[in-house]
Amino acid sequence: MNKLYHYWFSPFSRAIRVALAEKAIEFELVLEMPWTRRRDFLALNPAGTVPVLLCEDEVKLCGSYAIQEYLQDTQTTESLLGDTPAERAETRRLIEWFDVKFYTEVTDILIIEKVMKRFLKLGVPEAANIRCAGINIKQHLKYIEYLAERRNWLAGDRFSYADIAAASHLSCIDYLGDVPWEDFQGAKDWYARIKSRPSFQPLLKDLIAGLPPVSHYKNLDF
Amino acid sequence: MNKLYHYWFSPFSRAIRVALAEKAIEFELVLEMPWTRRRDFLALNPAGTVPVLLCEDEVKLCGSYAIQEYLQDTQTTESLLGDTPAERAETRRLIEWFDVKFYTEVTDILIIEKVMKRFLKLGVPEAANIRCAGINIKQHLKYIEYLAERRNWLAGDRFSYADIAAASHLSCIDYLGDVPWEDFQGAKDWYARIKSRPSFQPLLKDLIAGLPPVSHYKNLDF
Repeated sequence: MNKLYHYWFSPFSRAIRVALAEKAIEFELVLEMPWTRRRDFLALNPAGTVPVLLCEDEVKLCGSYAIQEYLQDTQTTESLLGDTPAERAETRRLIEWFDVKFYTEVTDILIIEKVMKRFLKLGVPEAANIRCAGINIKQHLKYIEYLAERRNWLAGDRFSYADIAAASHLSCIDYLGDVPWEDFQGAKDWYARIKSRPSFQPLLKDLIAGLPPVSHYKNLDF
Repeated sequence: MNKLYHYWFSPFSRAIRVALAEKAIEFELVLEMPWTRRRDFLALNPAGTVPVLLCEDEVKLCGSYAIQEYLQDTQTTESLLGDTPAERAETRRLIEWFDVKFYTEVTDILIIEKVMKRFLKLGVPEAANIRCAGINIKQHLKYIEYLAERRNWLAGDRFSYADIAAASHLSCIDYLGDVPWEDFQGAKDWYARIKSRPSFQPLLKDLIAGLPPVSHYKNLDF
């Protein structure tokens, strides 16, 4: 059986969970807390980060970039990146948007302040940082609306890894109740479509001990 | 003619300059200072970041991820990522290592403290941050040595985009004189091999007004 080392609040792990489900690839989840720097895990991935996918055929894939492109390289199922080089370039531009820009400006800040500080007892959250992420997320929701008004899905006509990346980051933040959906109806409608996909259901069932999700997190009608 | 929007101290732009040269693709360099948030440039790439490659055939590629994979998708020259899916996964693991881990722990810190603060008049560099990056870089040089002792190039037998990514980050730092080469002979030997490649020569001729490189920056014997 394929094994996916993941952490609940790693948006990169979430994206791979969805991508594997979209491709109907079975896998077993292994919870890894990267900050413990477990020796056996560092032997698997010296970067010490999740996701890591250990495939049945013993190929080891470290990081969402290597995993998502390996799926593109080896899978005959419908591509999650696009059919032409130009389509794939657009999908990859948006993956970078969410995995770098959104991550730096929103996800990473809120996860550090609201999750890591709590679990690792690193003191109280910094209100200024949380406020800053709250301002940033609005720009991103506006951009999602802009794209969703012009296209069926974020990168074009078809559901793609760009939607998966965006939704994975947003689902981490939504778990904490920090997405101002009410002001961004277009983004909300797009996210509702993602939430209703079978591949996304396992994420909506995530329940982290000591930190339950906000009540609307798993509702399709939120 | 292809146009590459770049900035001198963007390691991601540097990597694409080298990759295009390795593939003998001609291009014209356009200097873009991303922090000015120039309107015409934001229309090209709403993320406001470099590199952006405007191809002769009008395809627009934003970000090093989209560009490097587009080259893989469209070029018939020798692959910079590897020949098999497993080889490419290893190259991509290392690209992520340098573009995320090295960038966060070293490049970004030193560029902000030593370059951006100076050019944008944002006050004096924070000594504690520079010290921290100086400790981090040693771990990365050790890892480069570890790989270079076991393989011909970082990702395997062949020169790849993993070498390009690593050398692009290091060349930014080396320009500032902050790579402790003397303590890492194996890493130095590997970098000397990169420096002698024709594709790398244009980078060694970079000369930023008001901030000349350290004297050994362009020497093959350093």
